[in-house]
Amino acid sequence: MEVYLDNSATTRCFEEVAQLMMKIMCEDYGNPSSMHHKGVEAEHYIRHALETLARILKVNEKEILFTSGGTESDNIALIGTAMANHRAGRHLITTKIEHPAIMQTMRYLEDQGFRVTYLPVDGQGRIRLEDLKQAVGRDTILVSIMHTNNEIGTLEPIAEAGEIIKKRNPHTIFHVDAVQGFGKFRIYPSRMNIDLLSVSAHKIHGPKGAGFLYVNDKIKISPIIYGGGQQKGMRSGTENVAGIAGLARAAELMYENLDADMERLYRLREMFLQGISKIDQVKVNGCAGKEGASHIVSLSVRGIRSEVLLHALEDRGIYVSAGSACASNKPMPSATLKAIGVERDLLESTIRFSFSIFTTEEEIRYTLEALYDIIPMLRKYTRH
Amino acid sequence: MEVYLDNSATTRCFEEVAQLMMKIMCEDYGNPSSMHHKGVEAEHYIRHALETLARILKVNEKEILFTSGGTESDNIALIGTAMANHRAGRHLITTKIEHPAIMQTMRYLEDQGFRVTYLPVDGQGRIRLEDLKQAVGRDTILVSIMHTNNEIGTLEPIAEAGEIIKKRNPHTIFHVDAVQGFGKFRIYPSRMNIDLLSVSAHKIHGPKGAGFLYVNDKIKISPIIYGGGQQKGMRSGTENVAGIAGLARAAELMYENLDADMERLYRLREMFLQGISKIDQVKVNGCAGKEGASHIVSLSVRGIRSEVLLHALEDRGIYVSAGSACASNKPMPSATLKAIGVERDLLESTIRFSFSIFTTEEEIRYTLEALYDIIPMLRKYTRH
Repeated sequence: MEVYLDNSATTRCFEEVAQLMMKIMCEDYGNPSSMHHKGVEAEHYIRHALETLARILKVNEKEILFTSGGTESDNIALIGTAMANHRAGRHLITTKIEHPAIMQTMRYLEDQGFRVTYLPVDGQGRIRLEDLKQAVGRDTILVSIMHTNNEIGTLEPIAEAGEIIKKRNPHTIFHVDAVQGFGKFRIYPSRMNIDLLSVSAHKIHGPKGAGFLYVNDKIKISPIIYGGGQQKGMRSGTENVAGIAGLARAAELMYENLDADMERLYRLREMFLQGISKIDQVKVNGCAGKEGASHIVSLSVRGIRSEVLLHALEDRGIYVSAGSACASNKPMPSATLKAIGVERDLLESTIRFSFSIFTTEEEIRYTLEALYDIIPMLRKYTRH
Repeated sequence: MEVYLDNSATTRCFEEVAQLMMKIMCEDYGNPSSMHHKGVEAEHYIRHALETLARILKVNEKEILFTSGGTESDNIALIGTAMANHRAGRHLITTKIEHPAIMQTMRYLEDQGFRVTYLPVDGQGRIRLEDLKQAVGRDTILVSIMHTNNEIGTLEPIAEAGEIIKKRNPHTIFHVDAVQGFGKFRIYPSRMNIDLLSVSAHKIHGPKGAGFLYVNDKIKISPIIYGGGQQKGMRSGTENVAGIAGLARAAELMYENLDADMERLYRLREMFLQGISKIDQVKVNGCAGKEGASHIVSLSVRGIRSEVLLHALEDRGIYVSAGSACASNKPMPSATLKAIGVERDLLESTIRFSFSIFTTEEEIRYTLEALYDIIPMLRKYTRH
């Protein structure tokens, strides 16, 4: 049996999405910038994708900027905001548990002379709103907070944060990295005071190499890639028409039955967590209930190194992650786990299970059985 | 009959390439950064792509950096070089006929305090090597020259330029935008003193949204996108595995029969040019023989505006470009045509035909017949 529980690293592409992309690549392959019929046809796909995504987010079509994925979206959001607004201030705020696409870009901006505040989080990985309130000042041009943590699934209080930020400084731009949250939760930028929102296609059964950034029409950001002036000059380069169409179709499919799908996933997660509770000395990181995402479970398994458990599960056809792994495969101590205060000897004994709408009850049972077998066995062999 | 002669804007994806991509997206969909089998499988595709491209260019695998396309490759080449080497100097050199991905990025770098020399070209669009020699100085950190002009097909003297640059200043980095040349010509960076080479997949029957930058192991450039540290930190973001595999397979297919394919295309081009020579007052821009690319023909048709001719051809199922059009579809006077001295009233009467290995003799004949019909007719109706 093959059980893919690494959906926060990447997902299987919807068959229908791949079919659509294939049709575009082989038949409707025009360049949207071409003036003839084949160009117009290609532009239609883009227009349709804009409509779909704008409808899902309840925003305007012209506020969607297509990118090569979540990382580029985050980079445009941060660097683009910093470059366009540095005259208003050089202070940025983020959290201690962001994805490297935020963290490393913030480090780059620090090198460029910006000052960054990294908000701490509580034991469940949630920022304290009081800290945020204190941090936002007159020279704060950007706050970037992730929607759903990629390692432990914690949901940040985005709407509340948005309100606080705007109350403290209406000019501060609010960016949300929703790479793990989009397609799983309803996110409405205007209601939540979100100015910038990063999304990736391959986390929602779309293609790798595609994503978008929602950009509030009222804010000013600079491009980071220059050229032919596509997408109103904000992101040059021939549009990845197939990727864009695939991204939009995947998003549509994810939101079609969202509530039912998420209820089912929460039930599966609950079932998994109950099963896990029967194993000795296994700690669940993050929030257990609906304050955590339905698709992410992080476990610290005392006495067993993550890689060992990962490969033992792999032998049974179960694919999971050690820590995060949407980053490069160098093993590094996780900043998120440290920030929530995971004990030192558990840091390297932490493993992530991440579900998708394709995950079944049978798979969860199979995985639990495997863990019941493997964990005592590994502990026996490594403990003496 | 449908005759697609806009292959310099974009090409139809090889069926085989799209099939491979579909398999990767739906079956071998792992994240190359994942440590389990599905991640390793994905990494294999990347490794294989690296091997393929390195073999074609006769370079080392670690010198290939995957990007989201030609524009991003050009941006990394220029901005990455400027950022990493500004202490050695702030002078850059390019030509007056580059693609907007170079031109606009140079403008951005000018805003950042760099000084840019734009080399003029002769009536055929070739730079003068003497100008280049004069321009390279001790503070010149980068020279960027395109391999094949996208509007008129002129081939620049890359090997000679490389030699001159390195003789004048061995520290000057030489970038070549080969978006229109790769897959059509044999390009060997080490023999030609090329340090950076930009390539796009969708110009060689690969997917949009994929490309690479060859980076000489000995030079230093900075990344422009930060995050998870993929590709040795030089280009963060989950690799577009399907796009990368598709790009490499397309390149392999292009180079399989390169000499024969190019000979055939040169014959088709010759046939087309001979046919064109029978039409009154039509000027061919660029080089007629093998100093021009086999796949690009630029014509200035006196008395007829490009869009009018474009749409008249479209009515017969023939798709071409007005001027360049790999840029956004705003009509702008072409810098290339101006630089080669095209008369003012011909600037907006210029049209580009671009062939591919799928182009047939029958299609060329059909296009000529259409032009024999259309041009006199349009002139009759617009001239009075």
